[in-house]
Amino acid sequence: MRIARFSIDGNVAFGAVEGDGSGDPAGLVLDIIKGIPYADFELSGTKVPLSKVRLLPPVIGNKILGIGRNYADHAAELGNAVPEVPVVFLKPTTALIGTGDAIEYPSFSQEVHYEAELAVVIGRMCREVPRERVKDVIFGYTCANDVTARDTQRSENQWSRAKGFDTSCPLGPWVETDLDPSDLTLQCTVNGEQRQLGRTSEMIRSIEDVIVHITEAMTLLPGDVILTGTPAGVGPLSVGDEVAVTIEGIGTLTNKVIKRG
Amino acid sequence: MRIARFSIDGNVAFGAVEGDGSGDPAGLVLDIIKGIPYADFELSGTKVPLSKVRLLPPVIGNKILGIGRNYADHAAELGNAVPEVPVVFLKPTTALIGTGDAIEYPSFSQEVHYEAELAVVIGRMCREVPRERVKDVIFGYTCANDVTARDTQRSENQWSRAKGFDTSCPLGPWVETDLDPSDLTLQCTVNGEQRQLGRTSEMIRSIEDVIVHITEAMTLLPGDVILTGTPAGVGPLSVGDEVAVTIEGIGTLTNKVIKRG
Repeated sequence: MRIARFSIDGNVAFGAVEGDGSGDPAGLVLDIIKGIPYADFELSGTKVPLSKVRLLPPVIGNKILGIGRNYADHAAELGNAVPEVPVVFLKPTTALIGTGDAIEYPSFSQEVHYEAELAVVIGRMCREVPRERVKDVIFGYTCANDVTARDTQRSENQWSRAKGFDTSCPLGPWVETDLDPSDLTLQCTVNGEQRQLGRTSEMIRSIEDVIVHITEAMTLLPGDVILTGTPAGVGPLSVGDEVAVTIEGIGTLTNKVIKRG
Repeated sequence: MRIARFSIDGNVAFGAVEGDGSGDPAGLVLDIIKGIPYADFELSGTKVPLSKVRLLPPVIGNKILGIGRNYADHAAELGNAVPEVPVVFLKPTTALIGTGDAIEYPSFSQEVHYEAELAVVIGRMCREVPRERVKDVIFGYTCANDVTARDTQRSENQWSRAKGFDTSCPLGPWVETDLDPSDLTLQCTVNGEQRQLGRTSEMIRSIEDVIVHITEAMTLLPGDVILTGTPAGVGPLSVGDEVAVTIEGIGTLTNKVIKRG
């Protein structure tokens, strides 16, 4: 099932997307969910066309974690070794935007990069999750762009500003709950030109590894998001660019880059 | 005014602490606040004795930021240079505990350190705050312990696990809203023995510098917390220890260290 979060006429709700998303998105319909979708939920039967809503980041979560250097060819392109332990960083939820929202180029950077990533959305409160129970704590998967001020990342010891500025976490268009994430095509285009093409099977640390490692330290809550790393091909964005992340079986996350107003 | 957050009989509320806190805390009384205290708020006049409540972390916020290496003598004791730009890191809000709560020693570390710090609590949504407006976005100040798995901090490139494990952010006992933070005594004791003694006037980056730097990148929300760095004297905690952070004009934050259950 595909779960979107959206606003219409000033109201915010979650909804189940009807249709497979392969055709014209304008023809899709949202069945509004009663309450929040992480536990048992009910569809209301009240439907609104996707074309009438504004899609929002498809989570309301407590935190966003990311895994750095999780594809060997990407670590290599930035001159980094594959780390001995996974590199775990945090992005604040104030960085979240949905598909169609603008990435605002921050004033302190001259080198903002796209990074297409598979995002895991957590469905249950959990800590110290055993490897064999990881599947049980995952709600679903969505597309993420781990937008990064590369110059700031190089000059600052910790990545909070480089990867945490407002609008640096586009997420969407929706969460796909029925998906085997082990070998999906992951693509990034800028103005329609392909810049990144990888497969999730190339991850150095699997989703199981990552969730075991993170929850050894901290509790994850429903709606928390883990970005699982980017393949090779990262590069700069300029004001006016349109960047799109497409993951097989999920859909496409599209954002324009604008000057911060 | 001192603003505490507390639970009593299963209810959670904010309250204004009556009395100056210098005497026996058991004699203090909380005047329950209607709603949340960040904007205009009203005291209800309904009072409960402090001895009857459980104090909670005195914020409900979106994020916790910290500043690394902000006292020269502490940077030196760990063999670090004073950074050219402030080191900004994030701690997840799942790390928060209040005074009296237990710090749970995590399984992945053999070297958990205390770090006594002045914490700034934000009162207004803000971004790109000009230096002369910083005062307007601050709600108040409280005591923090930036508990750190020092071995993990050394072995992992980013500090999310080292400084973000559950219970690694003791905060409290309350927020003092009427305080000049520029030259306060900051002390840490372990089992009653003094381990850290500094003054906030020794900070390399002032609170103004830090808020300008952070909000250049990201929006701060009411209840967000900024830990402003620790002076020299950091050291290990063991299971069974009682660690206390005392800041002049605020009060004392006390936590016991236990084995994670």
